[in-house]
Amino acid sequence: MESNSRPLDTLNKARDKKVIIELKNGKQIRGTLIAFDIHINIVLEDAEEYQDNELKRKFGSTFIRGDTIILISPSE
Amino acid sequence: MESNSRPLDTLNKARDKKVIIELKNGKQIRGTLIAFDIHINIVLEDAEEYQDNELKRKFGSTFIRGDTIILISPSE
Amino acid sequence: MESNSRPLDTLNKARDKKVIIELKNGKQIRGTLIAFDIHINIVLEDAEEYQDNELKRKFGSTFIRGDTIILISPSE
Amino acid sequence: MESNSRPLDTLNKARDKKVIIELKNGKQIRGTLIAFDIHINIVLEDAEEYQDNELKRKFGSTFIRGDTIILISPSE
Amino acid sequence: MESNSRPLDTLNKARDKKVIIELKNGKQIRGTLIAFDIHINIVLEDAEEYQDNELKRKFGSTFIRGDTIILISPSE
Amino acid sequence: MESNSRPLDTLNKARDKKVIIELKNGKQIRGTLIAFDIHINIVLEDAEEYQDNELKRKFGSTFIRGDTIILISPSE
Amino acid sequence: MESNSRPLDTLNKARDKKVIIELKNGKQIRGTLIAFDIHINIVLEDAEEYQDNELKRKFGSTFIRGDTIILISPSE
Repeated sequence: MESNSRPLDTLNKARDKKVIIELKNGKQIRGTLIAFDIHINIVLEDAEEYQDNELKRKFGSTFIRGDTIILISPSE
Repeated sequence: MESNSRPLDTLNKARDKKVIIELKNGKQIRGTLIAFDIHINIVLEDAEEYQDNELKRKFGSTFIRGDTIILISPSE
Repeated sequence: MESNSRPLDTLNKARDKKVIIELKNGKQIRGTLIAFDIHINIVLEDAEEYQDNELKRKFGSTFIRGDTIILISPSE
Repeated sequence: MESNSRPLDTLNKARDKKVIIELKNGKQIRGTLIAFDIHINIVLEDAEEYQDNELKRKFGSTFIRGDTIILISPSE
Repeated sequence: MESNSRPLDTLNKARDKKVIIELKNGKQIRGTLIAFDIHINIVLEDAEEYQDNELKRKFGSTFIRGDTIILISPSE
Repeated sequence: MESNSRPLDTLNKARDKKVIIELKNGKQIRGTLIAFDIHINIVLEDAEEYQDNELKRKFGSTFIRGDTIILISPSE
Repeated sequence: MESNSRPLDTLNKARDKKVIIELKNGKQIRGTLIAFDIHINIVLEDAEEYQDNELKRKFGSTFIRGDTIILISPSE
């Protein structure tokens, strides 16, 4: 990854890939990154909620409000 | 869902459909998505409040302030 | 309620009607919706504060700051 | 109070009158409303702080930052 | 104090006077008001920190970030 | 470092270097600073999460939302 | 310090001087003020973290996000 890239470029490269999103409430949502905007609002597909590494729930596509997000990283 | 879509496009496709909204206070509101705006303020119809998967209350239409929302997903 | 309506349209239809407002501090204010703005600052008349469904206090008209509000729904 | 009024109109009518302000930290400030702005920053005169309905302190005029306010109502 | 004054006018009149500032973390800072801006960022001189009415610390001049402030009142 | 520099200049000099980021939730993320923007959204590569100085997890590249960050400092 | 000065003027005079910064999480960072901006983002050099007046850690230069800061005062 060359220097001078911007953070949203990184999110753009993660489109259609699996990501892990950590939320401020301590939960984790894993799924395929479909869409994002400058507020870091996110849409995942095939989303799954984990708490303490335990699968809690499965969603189809999920809209996550940006201000609840701590970090986003590739799933692998 | 094609790439390059934006998060609000996803909300738009959920209009008139059943959604589950998770709030920062740990509660869940389920209902039919009627309206939203860029702040993610939401209006649901036939809304029901759940806590720990137990139905707590029924509303008619409900206005939910966007900054209290963690995520929005289709009800099934 | 037709599609493509906006959340504030819903508030507008609730003017002069009884509403229940849930606050982030766990309290509930019930009263007649007199005025609101884009910040969801609200003015109620004949407002009553409830906690755990128990009437705690009566106000005349009350100004509620928008950022303390979780949701607004018709009282019945 | 006619329909279509805005929330700040209500505050304007309360100028020079006694109001009760509830703060997010659970305290109550009572006094005469002297000034406000669009952030709901408030100046009271002859302000008194109450906690659990007990008078804790008297101030002269007091500037209250808007983002600490839950609601403002006439004292009667 | 005449009607229609704005909250910042009140702060302006308090310049070079002793004030008490209450912070969201429960502490109190007392000192001479030297400067403020529209964010209610404040500079005090001869500032002293109190907790539960006990003097904890003395500063020289102190810059206080506006969003940590609950209220500002004249020291007497 | 000469005077009159701006905070983002300092971040710019840290590009491609190891940094430690402290988050509001008490965790620490260490990695190589790849990108940042004016909201202090950050991208790290070879990121590792520490809690109480214990390595908890390794990520590849990680996007960190700016409003969860307390401070950023060079790793050595 | 003459009247009508603005809060950022005070920060400007503290450049290249030792300051104490109190954070919302109860920690204190001491160091030499190198840079700041209108969000009160701060860069310190030779920064040291204290908790309950005990030195916890030394950094080189440190970027501190403005919204985590309560106050900034000269170190003596």
